[in-house]
Amino acid sequence: MSAAFVPTAAHLRERRERVGRALQDAGLAGLYVSTLVNVRYLTGFTGSNGALVLHADGTGTFLTDGRYRDQALTEVPELDHHVTRDLVGVAATAIDARDDLHPWGVETHTLSVDAHAALADHCRTPLRAAGRVVEAAREVKDDTEIAALREACRISVAALTALLEQGPLAGRTEREVARDLEWRMLELGAEAVGFPTILASGPNTAIPHHDPTDRVLETGDLVKADFGARVAGYHADCTRTVVLGRPDAFQREIHAAVRAAQAAGVAELRAGRPVAASDAAARRVLEDAGWLERFTTGVGHGVGLEIHEDPFIGARHAGTLADRTTLTMEPGIYVPGRGGVRIEDTVLVTPAATGGDPEVLTAMTTELLETA
Amino acid sequence: MSAAFVPTAAHLRERRERVGRALQDAGLAGLYVSTLVNVRYLTGFTGSNGALVLHADGTGTFLTDGRYRDQALTEVPELDHHVTRDLVGVAATAIDARDDLHPWGVETHTLSVDAHAALADHCRTPLRAAGRVVEAAREVKDDTEIAALREACRISVAALTALLEQGPLAGRTEREVARDLEWRMLELGAEAVGFPTILASGPNTAIPHHDPTDRVLETGDLVKADFGARVAGYHADCTRTVVLGRPDAFQREIHAAVRAAQAAGVAELRAGRPVAASDAAARRVLEDAGWLERFTTGVGHGVGLEIHEDPFIGARHAGTLADRTTLTMEPGIYVPGRGGVRIEDTVLVTPAATGGDPEVLTAMTTELLETA
Repeated sequence: MSAAFVPTAAHLRERRERVGRALQDAGLAGLYVSTLVNVRYLTGFTGSNGALVLHADGTGTFLTDGRYRDQALTEVPELDHHVTRDLVGVAATAIDARDDLHPWGVETHTLSVDAHAALADHCRTPLRAAGRVVEAAREVKDDTEIAALREACRISVAALTALLEQGPLAGRTEREVARDLEWRMLELGAEAVGFPTILASGPNTAIPHHDPTDRVLETGDLVKADFGARVAGYHADCTRTVVLGRPDAFQREIHAAVRAAQAAGVAELRAGRPVAASDAAARRVLEDAGWLERFTTGVGHGVGLEIHEDPFIGARHAGTLADRTTLTMEPGIYVPGRGGVRIEDTVLVTPAATGGDPEVLTAMTTELLETA
Repeated sequence: MSAAFVPTAAHLRERRERVGRALQDAGLAGLYVSTLVNVRYLTGFTGSNGALVLHADGTGTFLTDGRYRDQALTEVPELDHHVTRDLVGVAATAIDARDDLHPWGVETHTLSVDAHAALADHCRTPLRAAGRVVEAAREVKDDTEIAALREACRISVAALTALLEQGPLAGRTEREVARDLEWRMLELGAEAVGFPTILASGPNTAIPHHDPTDRVLETGDLVKADFGARVAGYHADCTRTVVLGRPDAFQREIHAAVRAAQAAGVAELRAGRPVAASDAAARRVLEDAGWLERFTTGVGHGVGLEIHEDPFIGARHAGTLADRTTLTMEPGIYVPGRGGVRIEDTVLVTPAATGGDPEVLTAMTTELLETA
């Protein structure tokens, strides 16, 4: 993995201190970080079992089991380690050892009822729901994160471009085309496919989330690919809908409406703007075109270490966008029995000081491509 | 997907009734099934968001969101559906509507503190921890499950066999070889790779869980592949360790010890035997050979819809094995700086009435293969 994508000790310390300040503001002595992706964000640990006892001053104790003893030494050199089968018991001891007068935060949105009860049993320190404090910190990306997202998006677009250039799609199955696209991403340097590729053709394009089947693509089909590479844990998320041969009037119409809605939504992804503004902008275009009732999913979401993460774009989101946030913008039209179109980009919110124009990381035309 | 791997309505009903009887035995009116893999097991639903309100009589109400409206109609035709964004609120209404005098079970080992609190807020019916009641039911596989596991194992073994036969490994990187193996599984009919392939070479074989790197394989290396295909949601889990060229005395010694330990463990996977017996048998061989302290992982685990599931083999497991249970047996020796060996099979426990010999589903020699 390129060093540019790996957070340095300074990055990780800054993240812990930033979350620590949020904990102080909430009157908490610290946080028991049990959500694995949050543990990764704050420690650099990429294994499948670990936790972090994070004090509000930004210091902490990392916990994992014996399988990850060596990996933890390499990935998390800056923190004290405990290797144990009893993460909760050791966490309780570490929490009580701080002997802070304030309550300790827990991630009740993911922590199981049983793990919470065990921690409460072992701890003298009172526990409090801390909310999505680490998820909120993760919304704003640092340099290593943006570099990884940029590379994941570059690989994704290059894979789709090559797929469309190099061979006829007609005559192959949805499954075959999906696998071809995934293989290209791996060959181009993805560490993994970020999520199972949605590859829908013909009437299947009307299904927003469609698992590829053995349906054979044929001339006249719309073909929708929703896919993305993963690099250093960070996800690209991209959708394009193309047509095999010449589009008919219906295909042209819904593609044009989605394209206009998507552009309107992207244009609102600016620092300081309400999150809900991009939702409203995209929906307004679909409504004016008479297609809003055929748009049945969300408009977009944050993307980073998780394929779906905060902020989730919607009319009810009360917040504003911060620069260095990465989000998707993905309106669509889905007409059962006839077909559908979705266009999706991964977009970076840029600083207002440098103009603030949204940067599309999945840089590729959104025109209706005609292919074979 | 072959119909042989898809549970019929009768299979699904039998599963719900079996879990229902366990709920009755526990004095529960029903179970709020929120663990996604358990929802799949009891309903057939393969999407990413769903829940089941299961009454102890085996009837139930299935809940999902709008993205899965059509998929739910296809996959879960036998149950009442509610399509909603508020799974917990609708579940509460469905639970109260039963108006049963007994408390209702919840899966507190996975249900988050917040979801539990929301459910308790909305429900008049008292909630109780139900334990791993669905996980326990999942230990014993039915015909469709065994067919899927058999196919996943067949594909996995065929992929490794072809990899070893068709090309020299020396000169290629761990990453390249891992990707080659994964590609072969997909080409042979896997719906997906079941888990990220562990491909370790030379000194890296001493790391039980090793992510493939750019290290180039060379003659004299041990090469360890821990991998498996997924078919219809069911996982194969297989490990073989080969040598490039001729093995040295150390490599021969640790491979022979692991091979004997693995065979001793497999031999104990019989219906009616204590789960702990296979742990003891494998460890005894390693102890007698003087290598037990270099064995640092678990001996094995159940495998099915999850790659790691009940029963987890260990000295403290108090239960006995039931026939039609599928488990892995995977002892190893890991010597830091020198290398390691693991041999792992997926094994089916067979009925005592037909002899009860364990059936190795990943049928492939465990001898130390010498390859190029």
